[in-house]
Amino acid sequence: MDPRTREHAETLVDWSARIEAGDDVVVSVAEDAHDLGVAVAAALGERGANVVTTYGSAELDRAYVDAHDSDFDADPDHELALYEHADAVLRLGGGRNTAESAGVPANKRRARDEATRGVREARLDTDWVSTVHPTRSLAQQAGMSYADYREFVYDAVLRDWSALAAEMDRLKQLFDGGETVRLVNEGSDLTMRIDGRTAVNSCASVAYDSHNLPSGEVFTAPHATAGHVTFDVPMTVRGEPVRDARLTFEDGEVTAVDAAQGESVIREMVDTDDGSRRLGELGVGMNRGIDRVTDNILFDEKMGGTVHLALGRAYDANLPDGESGNDSAVHVDLITDMRGDSRLEIDGEVVQANGVFRWEEGFEPPA
Amino acid sequence: MDPRTREHAETLVDWSARIEAGDDVVVSVAEDAHDLGVAVAAALGERGANVVTTYGSAELDRAYVDAHDSDFDADPDHELALYEHADAVLRLGGGRNTAESAGVPANKRRARDEATRGVREARLDTDWVSTVHPTRSLAQQAGMSYADYREFVYDAVLRDWSALAAEMDRLKQLFDGGETVRLVNEGSDLTMRIDGRTAVNSCASVAYDSHNLPSGEVFTAPHATAGHVTFDVPMTVRGEPVRDARLTFEDGEVTAVDAAQGESVIREMVDTDDGSRRLGELGVGMNRGIDRVTDNILFDEKMGGTVHLALGRAYDANLPDGESGNDSAVHVDLITDMRGDSRLEIDGEVVQANGVFRWEEGFEPPA
Repeated sequence: MDPRTREHAETLVDWSARIEAGDDVVVSVAEDAHDLGVAVAAALGERGANVVTTYGSAELDRAYVDAHDSDFDADPDHELALYEHADAVLRLGGGRNTAESAGVPANKRRARDEATRGVREARLDTDWVSTVHPTRSLAQQAGMSYADYREFVYDAVLRDWSALAAEMDRLKQLFDGGETVRLVNEGSDLTMRIDGRTAVNSCASVAYDSHNLPSGEVFTAPHATAGHVTFDVPMTVRGEPVRDARLTFEDGEVTAVDAAQGESVIREMVDTDDGSRRLGELGVGMNRGIDRVTDNILFDEKMGGTVHLALGRAYDANLPDGESGNDSAVHVDLITDMRGDSRLEIDGEVVQANGVFRWEEGFEPPA
Repeated sequence: MDPRTREHAETLVDWSARIEAGDDVVVSVAEDAHDLGVAVAAALGERGANVVTTYGSAELDRAYVDAHDSDFDADPDHELALYEHADAVLRLGGGRNTAESAGVPANKRRARDEATRGVREARLDTDWVSTVHPTRSLAQQAGMSYADYREFVYDAVLRDWSALAAEMDRLKQLFDGGETVRLVNEGSDLTMRIDGRTAVNSCASVAYDSHNLPSGEVFTAPHATAGHVTFDVPMTVRGEPVRDARLTFEDGEVTAVDAAQGESVIREMVDTDDGSRRLGELGVGMNRGIDRVTDNILFDEKMGGTVHLALGRAYDANLPDGESGNDSAVHVDLITDMRGDSRLEIDGEVVQANGVFRWEEGFEPPA
């Protein structure tokens, strides 16, 4: 076994999920994530935690859904009981075919999502963490060789997380004390208000309200957006390639959409409901271990030197207790690259220029 | 996918486990049983059952146990809750290495078995069924090519089970009405009492108290055993090859042991406790789809034309309500071949000669 697989497992169990002796843990192992599963099982055994291992097979799931008549039972007892009694759920993604769920009719998918809402809530109520094992199918999606992709994943995952958490706290403090953000790059000049919101220091640990490994972003819930922004990082949205989508905002709402490719999918998304015309998230990627786009949002949105904005639903963690933010059935992240001629300002002060934070070496304030 | 894999799945779901719409089913998928898992998921989806899929990986389990300090928590909440709320548990065996658990210290194995007794009882309290997917590691254990082994498994599994159940009922009725059984073959002349016991028609369905697929045996709990028996079907017992073990009984107890190979493991087993010196099971193999030994007790003991006897624990299903039969920490099946010059008598009447039942074509009563 690659020794980094063991390091990955220990990072997941200790830094991310904070597992202790006696914890009841569910580990979901995707089809090709077996090696990481073995390493995680060893780490959990060593810590004296208790394990139920589920098989996260997209192929089994697809076969089940295809054969079902769509009249799904609500929250099956045994599944609900499993998650209601679990302290933590570790999802080891990385299957054999990232397109395995392509072509499931939207109404069937929706029927199942609705029927299993209670199970999902029980799962999200645990100390859950999602990660991926580097598999050949993810390498293929990234357009990379298997060997190169493994380097990429471990560079992203095996960070000095507590040092990164301290660095990200700087940006969180600036966001928490700030009122407006301005984002300027070659295709963008956008202002958003962030007053009254709390930023999340998403450093890949449940102790920080962060549930992805890797992570490495600071995000908040903006409002009153105005101006325009171009998402020049290529993405796949609902199975469609999207290139250089450009959105214009007035009074917080999208007023114009165009794109070099995939304009129709962006329009469809924007037109979903009232909330999908507004932003739910402003996130700043700060993971310098991620230096290229791999068409996997778990990695892309954390890339150091990028900023992402999500149309749709906002996260409760960003909002004052009891206040609901932007509500929507969708939450779709789109990414803009700040590594060219760019700046990010909070209340008129430049905190990042050309993708470099003002506390980083090489920072040069714009003229 | 081999179309027989789908037939296997449908036999398991319909004939064996009697799954109905709304049933909460746990499916355990071994490392290399993925294809059968997909077929079972489709069958369960079609019937409108609900599924939690666990990953039955011997390698994960071994890694967990090796890393653990042996002070196992008793019956973890989440695992207990899963099985307590399940209607059925389908175990799809067939991993990558049948020796994966070799070398776990006996006291560690025992500590874990004891800690998880409640989980095991909850699982056995469901409509559980164990089967195996034909895998390369099982083919290797059987000393067969992968292609030949798949033929072998499907011949054993894809029977006309309701016809076999009807045939097996004949023997069950004879056992239930009988008082003594005598078994005679080249190396054996053994008598046992079976009065007051109820035979189980084990035809691979929970509707018949039968939890293995394949099955195909009729078994009861004998007592007052006298005479000698030679187990000429080669077996592996506790990792040791055993050949031509011969046991002598007086008043129900073993009084002499010898064997051409593996005598010490048989002695060790016999000497475990009081109950291990007595028989707990007399079983008659009636599955004519199984025509060779494959060193896998799930198949070997069901082979048509063989009889097996187990030293140790008896099954409650064979005993009058409230009565406990032979009690022991062990239950080890040993097999004798009846296809040579042999006979099986109930109360002095020959019911099988030379491996052929008296209702089968080719039956010739001994001179």
